[in-house]
Amino acid sequence: MDSFDFISPLDYRYIGRDKDFAKIAGFFSENSRIKYQAKIELALIKALAARKVCSQKVVEEVEKAIQEIKAEEVYNEEDITKHDIKALVNVLRSKVSEEAKPFIHLTSTSYDIVDTANSLRFKEGTLELLIPALKELEKTIIELALREKETVQIGRTHGQHAEPITFGYFLACYASRIGQRIKEIEARANSLKGKFSGAVGAYNASSLFFDNALEFEKEVLAQLGLLPSESSTQIIEPEPLTDLSHAVVSCFGVLANLADDLRHLQRSEIAEVAEAFDSKQVGSSTMPHKRNPINFENVKSFYKEFMPRMTSVYLDQISEHQRDLTNSASQRFLPELFVGFYSSVKRMDKILSKLVVDKENMRKNFETASESIIAEPLYLLFAFKGHPDAHEFLKQLTLKAQQEKKPLIEIIKQDKEAKEWLEKLDERQKEIALQPEKYIGKAVEKTGLICEHWKKELKI
Amino acid sequence: MDSFDFISPLDYRYIGRDKDFAKIAGFFSENSRIKYQAKIELALIKALAARKVCSQKVVEEVEKAIQEIKAEEVYNEEDITKHDIKALVNVLRSKVSEEAKPFIHLTSTSYDIVDTANSLRFKEGTLELLIPALKELEKTIIELALREKETVQIGRTHGQHAEPITFGYFLACYASRIGQRIKEIEARANSLKGKFSGAVGAYNASSLFFDNALEFEKEVLAQLGLLPSESSTQIIEPEPLTDLSHAVVSCFGVLANLADDLRHLQRSEIAEVAEAFDSKQVGSSTMPHKRNPINFENVKSFYKEFMPRMTSVYLDQISEHQRDLTNSASQRFLPELFVGFYSSVKRMDKILSKLVVDKENMRKNFETASESIIAEPLYLLFAFKGHPDAHEFLKQLTLKAQQEKKPLIEIIKQDKEAKEWLEKLDERQKEIALQPEKYIGKAVEKTGLICEHWKKELKI
Amino acid sequence: MDSFDFISPLDYRYIGRDKDFAKIAGFFSENSRIKYQAKIELALIKALAARKVCSQKVVEEVEKAIQEIKAEEVYNEEDITKHDIKALVNVLRSKVSEEAKPFIHLTSTSYDIVDTANSLRFKEGTLELLIPALKELEKTIIELALREKETVQIGRTHGQHAEPITFGYFLACYASRIGQRIKEIEARANSLKGKFSGAVGAYNASSLFFDNALEFEKEVLAQLGLLPSESSTQIIEPEPLTDLSHAVVSCFGVLANLADDLRHLQRSEIAEVAEAFDSKQVGSSTMPHKRNPINFENVKSFYKEFMPRMTSVYLDQISEHQRDLTNSASQRFLPELFVGFYSSVKRMDKILSKLVVDKENMRKNFETASESIIAEPLYLLFAFKGHPDAHEFLKQLTLKAQQEKKPLIEIIKQDKEAKEWLEKLDERQKEIALQPEKYIGKAVEKTGLICEHWKKELKI
Amino acid sequence: MDSFDFISPLDYRYIGRDKDFAKIAGFFSENSRIKYQAKIELALIKALAARKVCSQKVVEEVEKAIQEIKAEEVYNEEDITKHDIKALVNVLRSKVSEEAKPFIHLTSTSYDIVDTANSLRFKEGTLELLIPALKELEKTIIELALREKETVQIGRTHGQHAEPITFGYFLACYASRIGQRIKEIEARANSLKGKFSGAVGAYNASSLFFDNALEFEKEVLAQLGLLPSESSTQIIEPEPLTDLSHAVVSCFGVLANLADDLRHLQRSEIAEVAEAFDSKQVGSSTMPHKRNPINFENVKSFYKEFMPRMTSVYLDQISEHQRDLTNSASQRFLPELFVGFYSSVKRMDKILSKLVVDKENMRKNFETASESIIAEPLYLLFAFKGHPDAHEFLKQLTLKAQQEKKPLIEIIKQDKEAKEWLEKLDERQKEIALQPEKYIGKAVEKTGLICEHWKKELKI
Repeated sequence: MDSFDFISPLDYRYIGRDKDFAKIAGFFSENSRIKYQAKIELALIKALAARKVCSQKVVEEVEKAIQEIKAEEVYNEEDITKHDIKALVNVLRSKVSEEAKPFIHLTSTSYDIVDTANSLRFKEGTLELLIPALKELEKTIIELALREKETVQIGRTHGQHAEPITFGYFLACYASRIGQRIKEIEARANSLKGKFSGAVGAYNASSLFFDNALEFEKEVLAQLGLLPSESSTQIIEPEPLTDLSHAVVSCFGVLANLADDLRHLQRSEIAEVAEAFDSKQVGSSTMPHKRNPINFENVKSFYKEFMPRMTSVYLDQISEHQRDLTNSASQRFLPELFVGFYSSVKRMDKILSKLVVDKENMRKNFETASESIIAEPLYLLFAFKGHPDAHEFLKQLTLKAQQEKKPLIEIIKQDKEAKEWLEKLDERQKEIALQPEKYIGKAVEKTGLICEHWKKELKI
Repeated sequence: MDSFDFISPLDYRYIGRDKDFAKIAGFFSENSRIKYQAKIELALIKALAARKVCSQKVVEEVEKAIQEIKAEEVYNEEDITKHDIKALVNVLRSKVSEEAKPFIHLTSTSYDIVDTANSLRFKEGTLELLIPALKELEKTIIELALREKETVQIGRTHGQHAEPITFGYFLACYASRIGQRIKEIEARANSLKGKFSGAVGAYNASSLFFDNALEFEKEVLAQLGLLPSESSTQIIEPEPLTDLSHAVVSCFGVLANLADDLRHLQRSEIAEVAEAFDSKQVGSSTMPHKRNPINFENVKSFYKEFMPRMTSVYLDQISEHQRDLTNSASQRFLPELFVGFYSSVKRMDKILSKLVVDKENMRKNFETASESIIAEPLYLLFAFKGHPDAHEFLKQLTLKAQQEKKPLIEIIKQDKEAKEWLEKLDERQKEIALQPEKYIGKAVEKTGLICEHWKKELKI
Repeated sequence: MDSFDFISPLDYRYIGRDKDFAKIAGFFSENSRIKYQAKIELALIKALAARKVCSQKVVEEVEKAIQEIKAEEVYNEEDITKHDIKALVNVLRSKVSEEAKPFIHLTSTSYDIVDTANSLRFKEGTLELLIPALKELEKTIIELALREKETVQIGRTHGQHAEPITFGYFLACYASRIGQRIKEIEARANSLKGKFSGAVGAYNASSLFFDNALEFEKEVLAQLGLLPSESSTQIIEPEPLTDLSHAVVSCFGVLANLADDLRHLQRSEIAEVAEAFDSKQVGSSTMPHKRNPINFENVKSFYKEFMPRMTSVYLDQISEHQRDLTNSASQRFLPELFVGFYSSVKRMDKILSKLVVDKENMRKNFETASESIIAEPLYLLFAFKGHPDAHEFLKQLTLKAQQEKKPLIEIIKQDKEAKEWLEKLDERQKEIALQPEKYIGKAVEKTGLICEHWKKELKI
Repeated sequence: MDSFDFISPLDYRYIGRDKDFAKIAGFFSENSRIKYQAKIELALIKALAARKVCSQKVVEEVEKAIQEIKAEEVYNEEDITKHDIKALVNVLRSKVSEEAKPFIHLTSTSYDIVDTANSLRFKEGTLELLIPALKELEKTIIELALREKETVQIGRTHGQHAEPITFGYFLACYASRIGQRIKEIEARANSLKGKFSGAVGAYNASSLFFDNALEFEKEVLAQLGLLPSESSTQIIEPEPLTDLSHAVVSCFGVLANLADDLRHLQRSEIAEVAEAFDSKQVGSSTMPHKRNPINFENVKSFYKEFMPRMTSVYLDQISEHQRDLTNSASQRFLPELFVGFYSSVKRMDKILSKLVVDKENMRKNFETASESIIAEPLYLLFAFKGHPDAHEFLKQLTLKAQQEKKPLIEIIKQDKEAKEWLEKLDERQKEIALQPEKYIGKAVEKTGLICEHWKKELKI
């Protein structure tokens, strides 16, 4: 059995073969899941020891035991018990002395362990894996934006040439959107909660041993850097993890938007950007001349695969009474969303780092557009100077220009009425209105503002 | 044509016939949409006047004009122009003097108006309609929770009797979850942004007139209590509205969970709660004896209708380049999510205000369960006292109790080994372990803590 | 209160203002819903009369009563009974003689009426409204495809120029996909079922009156042209309606694909097609020169709004035991999917009927591409003639052509090795390989085959 | 690296550890994907040989080569070419003689291979793995239904006791729904298509070699038992696979419904069924007395994970022009839907085979209900006998019975008016109306009809 016998493309292709696989698996594999659960069991023992319920020796034994633990043995035990946490507890017990055995898992219910472990690994996986990758991407975008901040590009709305921007400004808008999402994801990861409130959330078991069971919960969780949930039943209320998932999915939406934008800019007819292309790379098995935006397409495709998983997350908000188990299997799949997203962030960073920007084509497209761009400033200025129906007036002139296949400016200069209105403008207005490449508004300035803001805000 | 000729159940049934219809429509109808857009056009005029670009008289004219405006006339004009904002602008112009005409809409693009108007009405609709309704519901839940904080109820996990809670504690957990969502929804409504950055977001047009176009944008939006988007193109970046939608949808999930819980508690065999039932009400057209949880079912059904709409919101995050229009129609449907949610909040509040709590059945179900409840505390205490395999030990005793159809406690007292372990407990432990109704942990205390916290936090 | 006070854009904008509104409402409004339910009550009476349980006079009375019925009065009665079908029954009873009263609704449960009425109206609405509209669209596409079957167009994969097709062939592929969906939708509408099996599906009530209750069910449904469900509980099993919804949603996907394709073909840089543009129409409120693909965008936007509703339909497959009511409200929204789809079909037909095809731009784009197109046939033919690594060979030549900015054919003619391979081809192969516009394979022939097939199959 | 280092629970837990893993992987692993692709390349060679384009020796060489092929080597080659099919082709070429090399992949484009291979493996995986598993499940349900066809059970609507059914009838309704889905899934698997129409679907390449390229496509596909797509571009039109996915997802909905029904019937208060429980199994890590419906919960949880993936399938219907690649990665995940579903089918079969049916509790619950059940038949019969408002009459009697806590029949016998109406019934009607356990309508008969129908139809 090799990894290509597996079903999930994450395992056999996208993550399992990633050079950072070990790091990713450190948070999101099944081995890591069990490691984290063992870590929670240890935190419990430490808190018990701090209260002198058990000795420091027990802590040391458990500490040693959890380092030895392997998913394999837990699974073998689960084959007998049919219960994953009971299996973990049995395995841990088998590794410690008789004296230590009774303290393992004492006062806790399975989901004290499962949910707290999940909160911790999603928190740490997010903060230590996702956020750094996102910041790398953000940095790459900012550098590119600053480099291209003055590169004039025709802005497009409805796929139609609209008004001028700069390519740097286009990128800066993404720097802003992604920057905001980074803050959101970070905040949500830090809001994940733990619980040690027992089988129905009422601290029934722990109250047998401690008067102040809520305090005891805090002590266990403090070992892990987590705060307790305010409203746990058998499980932590699902909203904090739902919010984090939303933050991830909505950031995936921004990546997908960027990927779409760039692959359209790579269209043969537009050709303003291109993915870098390795000399041994094959574009098409049958068309030797093809250079395809395969990485942008891949990011969009991952988005289509993972965005809908948010519906599973929403459905898992509903758990009957003090919990049903219908979120158990589905929640096991949640790491896939995080690694799927991670994979796309890394990929996007890699392509953007080597993005080919074809300034010549950018200029060429801009020039094609420029003949009609001036319709907007002229309409605005004529209106401002008092023309009663400037919009219609310019629309008719534009139509005429199209029919006669002449630049709009020529039509305007030939048209007596239009020419008169033109004369009313001051020099600066005339200059901007008639030189489309100057009609870029605050694109350069705002690119700078956005990029500086996020460099500072994210310390990148 | 009457309202029953319409297609949407919101219009002919759920909202159109609501006694607060006018209030709801004030934010979420098409008339209100256009009113809000006109309000944005006015804010622009005011900002122009503040900069002395136009006179105060123009402001007054426009102020008067927007009060007269009706969706009907805008739609008639749109039939000609095929462009909704151009239609609005034409109608507004038709209502003011020649002097005022040129200033209307000056420097702005359609989506400066459309998106800013949407941000404003979703903000105000959320804060003035949804949040008050949610706070009413929260208040109702808290009152009920406090009233029932000591009413012992059997906790249920996997639909199976688990450990004891109180009915008040069950409700307090929802007070906590809903309280947290209220804060979230409120925060997200307050984070909605406006924009006045023109056709491609680069302030091209406004820069023709003002050096400091970013300042001018701030001035217009300040009139409306909004901050500018950092990264608008032709449109505001979609994330703030996406986040608000998520806050609403995830709160809908909590309502759906509560509705499910209560309708299961109303099952014939459980019968711990019931919807109040009007004397003329009919449960079934054919079964005169039926009393159905129709309102809880309705809330769940609304959730099933509206939760999936989040997918549309996510899809609308993607807009090509400086925008495509593929979010135009879909975004028009977004108010449906808000009123659908509002309808469920109000409904839930109404049922809970009159919820029938059958304490006798609650006690009866608890007693059935109590025979086995004590297995948990005994296992824990035996383990703590040093029993090497307490869990298995209790499991076997429980099985025996089931086979012999005797209460577990009797089996324990008959079992020599078990009895010995029982003797090792101190009096308080014995008392709790053997009187299941005392095995409620911190349910009462935590109910109080949660309720007080949210009363204070939400000022209700 | 006018229609602009309503919430749903379907009501105030897209359907409520459609010229065919009355026809659409005839199947999908609330008035029509109640009309259909009354029709089912009548079918029941007729079946009872056929069995001599009641007289023909009762049939006549009920026939008259159902013609008078108005949603308004049913809703007023429902305000009292809180039960929609009981309200309908009461209203019907109030309109007939004492003699007739007892027979109304006799033996049936509410959902015998509700579900059978839904099946009937979705069936008739689909067959009489949707299918004709789809056939109109199909006809338009076929005509266009045949007209343009020889118009050479560059095929595009990954947004990159690939190999030649014809514009007619592009359209024919859609004719095929839509044709297949029409067959699917039609088949699914015809598979909708009725039921008269009572409150829990076991014919409890009808068996009180008839030995052969299954036969009686068939008799009632035969009046309506429906077959009985094989597995109804209180409700018809949800799968037939789920299948029809899927057929509609998957056809919506094909429309969305076509809309995307066409709006990308309308991009400024490509400009091979354009929506017809009314002379008074406004493209942008601020950019007088804009011509936007707003109708294609609208179709895509409707798709984004309605496709996700399939998730609600799937969720409604789950109804506990003999039914819960959590599908009641959500199912009331289902007509929106059908009219939303209908609206897009009509819109697409309208635009395509007047589609502007810019053959000159099509040719121009093709010529730009043609320099590299020949890489594929040459690679294939060289390989076939025995070149050991033809793909790599052509890839290198293509790269060279790009670097030297020369047509590939020139490079080939200058390259000794390439020229030798070229010589090995026969005349026909050389001709096709060197004249890209002849390299269109079976595009023309297959366009004809597909179009003829669907004209015949759909009798259009 | 062991399998617990992987991310997907399918790989490390649900499928990777399944005893039938090899069989499942034979269709749905990455190794199998590549095997199927190689099989398609072979079919092409065979068709070429049949036309004497290459020799039979070439066929034999390729036949041998594809048996040797391993995913590992293809992936290593892909690391260089960055193109999966080009990698496969290179590896295949490396395993054959110089003579054979040129014929491999000749005339075809990557997606001729990829899409045809997918159609074939989804077809075979469905017919050879899913359908047999589904038939096993269907058989189990039918056997159980026939065994329990006369076991009276109270029917439940809205979670409330309604009218009587039998437990066998409850199951028969599922046999019917699943039976219908089996037919649907089978039909859809058989409708999957292949393609050999080249890079843009116009047979450009194959037409270089053959006049009748459409015939040649048929010949290749005939080797595989597939028919050609009518409207392929670079890819097969997505609808056939979308339809199959829908068939699977909608069948998953039926399973989820059954799982929900059964876990609610296992509720402590209802306790009519139970999952069999292994003696070493642990219900709860802390509550030794728990017996949880974990398998039913697991099926529901899988449903929540996989149903939303249909949204990805719908999104993948859209591929720009002659195709974009944004469905490439997402489509790689599609096997997960099939194996996730398979896992749930097998699990459901396993639990149902050993389902514990507690007839005593079933009877007990029925008796509790029976006091009020007779309200329906009495209302119907009274109405039929001419009572002007029988429904209201019975409703009042029922309320009275509830208030006085007496059986309804006693109230009726005490009520003068009611008693008079009772007297009007004939003996058979009285018998049924007063003995609720006889009020089961056609439950027994229809159970038999449904079961016999599906045994025959599915040959099980």
